[in-house]
Amino acid sequence: MNPLSVKADFPILTQVVNERPLVYLDNAATSQKPQCVIDAVSHYYETTNSNVHRGVHTLGSQATDLYEGARAKVQAFIKANDAAEIIFTRGTTASINIVASSYAMAQLQVGDEIVISPAEHHSNLIPWQQVAQQTGATLTYFELEVDGRLTVEKAAAAINKQTKIVALAQASNVLGTINPIKEIAAIAHANGAIIVVDGAQSVPHLPVDVQELDIDFLAFSGHKMMGPTGIGVLYGKRALLEAMDPVEYGGEMIDFVTLEGATWKELPWKFEAGTPIIAGAIGLGAAIDYLNTIGMATVAAHGTELVAYALERLRTIEGIDIHGPLDPQQRTALVSFNVGDIHPHDLSTVLDEQGIAIRAGHHCAQPLMKWLGASSTARASFYMYNTKAEVDALVAAIELTKEYFGYGEA
Amino acid sequence: MNPLSVKADFPILTQVVNERPLVYLDNAATSQKPQCVIDAVSHYYETTNSNVHRGVHTLGSQATDLYEGARAKVQAFIKANDAAEIIFTRGTTASINIVASSYAMAQLQVGDEIVISPAEHHSNLIPWQQVAQQTGATLTYFELEVDGRLTVEKAAAAINKQTKIVALAQASNVLGTINPIKEIAAIAHANGAIIVVDGAQSVPHLPVDVQELDIDFLAFSGHKMMGPTGIGVLYGKRALLEAMDPVEYGGEMIDFVTLEGATWKELPWKFEAGTPIIAGAIGLGAAIDYLNTIGMATVAAHGTELVAYALERLRTIEGIDIHGPLDPQQRTALVSFNVGDIHPHDLSTVLDEQGIAIRAGHHCAQPLMKWLGASSTARASFYMYNTKAEVDALVAAIELTKEYFGYGEA
Repeated sequence: MNPLSVKADFPILTQVVNERPLVYLDNAATSQKPQCVIDAVSHYYETTNSNVHRGVHTLGSQATDLYEGARAKVQAFIKANDAAEIIFTRGTTASINIVASSYAMAQLQVGDEIVISPAEHHSNLIPWQQVAQQTGATLTYFELEVDGRLTVEKAAAAINKQTKIVALAQASNVLGTINPIKEIAAIAHANGAIIVVDGAQSVPHLPVDVQELDIDFLAFSGHKMMGPTGIGVLYGKRALLEAMDPVEYGGEMIDFVTLEGATWKELPWKFEAGTPIIAGAIGLGAAIDYLNTIGMATVAAHGTELVAYALERLRTIEGIDIHGPLDPQQRTALVSFNVGDIHPHDLSTVLDEQGIAIRAGHHCAQPLMKWLGASSTARASFYMYNTKAEVDALVAAIELTKEYFGYGEA
Repeated sequence: MNPLSVKADFPILTQVVNERPLVYLDNAATSQKPQCVIDAVSHYYETTNSNVHRGVHTLGSQATDLYEGARAKVQAFIKANDAAEIIFTRGTTASINIVASSYAMAQLQVGDEIVISPAEHHSNLIPWQQVAQQTGATLTYFELEVDGRLTVEKAAAAINKQTKIVALAQASNVLGTINPIKEIAAIAHANGAIIVVDGAQSVPHLPVDVQELDIDFLAFSGHKMMGPTGIGVLYGKRALLEAMDPVEYGGEMIDFVTLEGATWKELPWKFEAGTPIIAGAIGLGAAIDYLNTIGMATVAAHGTELVAYALERLRTIEGIDIHGPLDPQQRTALVSFNVGDIHPHDLSTVLDEQGIAIRAGHHCAQPLMKWLGASSTARASFYMYNTKAEVDALVAAIELTKEYFGYGEA
């Protein structure tokens, strides 16, 4: 599929920024939304808006059908066994925090181990630090290869009979590395541990099948996969979710309430206290429809093609330091880099003057920055609507920035 | 202001439901959204969408300005002293749960008391049951008058030196009663307690000034005040929020992170882990702009006028049992009732056939249902776009329903 025909569905991408056509390469932070997703949300408010589950009137029934229909779309998208295993949350961070504060706080004790990668996003790191501090469990770290990859061998070496939780991003938001989740899940299970997968950077870009991977929990966000902000998903295996306590209490999640106590509703509503994120879920459902029309295999292939081209072109820049593996097959569609001693913020600012939006900073992964020996990096991240011409524009703009900062004049 | 001119701003209200013009009287469950709010969200996605705070590119700066601008609008709307006291959350339920799980779990112990009303919504009841169960504190209840009102005298009788938290809705979602929050806050403070106010049913309908009321925490939802679903607010006094631990951990809410630990950002971001609910906050800001254009005094006066008319008209129905005080000055714009032994669900279903959307059920207030001696009630709830003609339509439809069920043939 031609990325230009995809791009035509995204009104924001026709913008002019700083008198240049916008080149949006900050998709790992948040993706743009096709008109059909924007319209699905508007249409809901214009025609159907009502609270769900509680209503016996027509709009209430229609809204409930749309909301639960969105859940079914998510279930099919990640190939979950059961719609009850799909919990709508505020986003990836909220999803991981539910697992940490409900499952882990109840299950772990002194002597137990949680294993994560030093490349984790803070959202898959700090919750586990908190669990370790409060339960007395130990937080340990996988050892990465020099290019940032996590091998099955190194994973196996870190997981043992004390391990109760393996928490791992399927794809790194800085290195782009794709972790061998299926193999690591098998190792975790063989040791009696569960695996919690941060899918924020993988679910938008790769076909993900939770049953084939055999993962216990999967967290991801709508806004990084062409959906609205403020909606995310926690997938969990039914038996695990059923054994867990809710983390928020209120309406919608109860069966019976007296002055003295309460009983909880069945899954998935037990974890959805209060009025749900109705329009957000419907918007996410529309985004899934859109991605399915393209096909996730096509999305993944386009990402690989674009990152291969980006790696090839960026490597021609003298003084560039590209982080992560150079094999595009081992990456999702993003590249982090530093250019000489130009501060990534300065680089990003000068690129922005040329209409090119990239991100600069620690990317919510400070320990990984330390591991890389950098205080921050620049990151260009791609999606289905990005083109090789935009990669060329990025490379040309970096060259121009180097000149601006006095490089490359020799 | 003429409600018909307001109604023209709400596309959904021109709908035909079951071949009748929609009469939407379920506003206490969720309100409809004016076109300007729907458009503000769409416009954001079509022109500005980007992640906030982290970006050094143009869209990122614009999105951050819009998001923080929405916070400033909320601050002004409830007259908070400081924008840092405004935390964006998923909704009222999430807001109250933050206070319960962070403030209360840390502060309370055996011997302490939490006082709430038996009329509370489950979202302001079950979190306190959990706090009591886990801390050993005692949950006690205010005593209501026979018409459901809570008097200052009865409140004073229930608050004592053991009381650490008073948790109270400013307006009941079933009875419509407006509680004397300012007086009760003063009593709480005189006893060394704090007051947590559920503003879900008051902030959309009344001018609320947190400083004048001197309340410690205020929780409310965007979707009940013409804003999007999935966005809410927790207001808290700065000193209280600063002393509290975060409840979710991840990106955006940290200063420094190492493999061993982390430090938190300052308010309000300490409580906003992960990508915020950006479009939701912007939509809520647009809803506040819209409400300000009408004026909250006008909104409140219209509600009082409409509920007065509804009480007057509904009382003409033989066999109706209206819950709560009959003085419209003591109510927000809703009326709960039962009609003979017609089950509220049946009543609601027959009204729906006539295009009239009301709610039937326990309204997430099962203990109050028990107090009322009813398993459920019907509830008609109004907003700025509702008219006296719609009240007439409701009354006529109830009369018709009575005939349908064999009443009133004598």
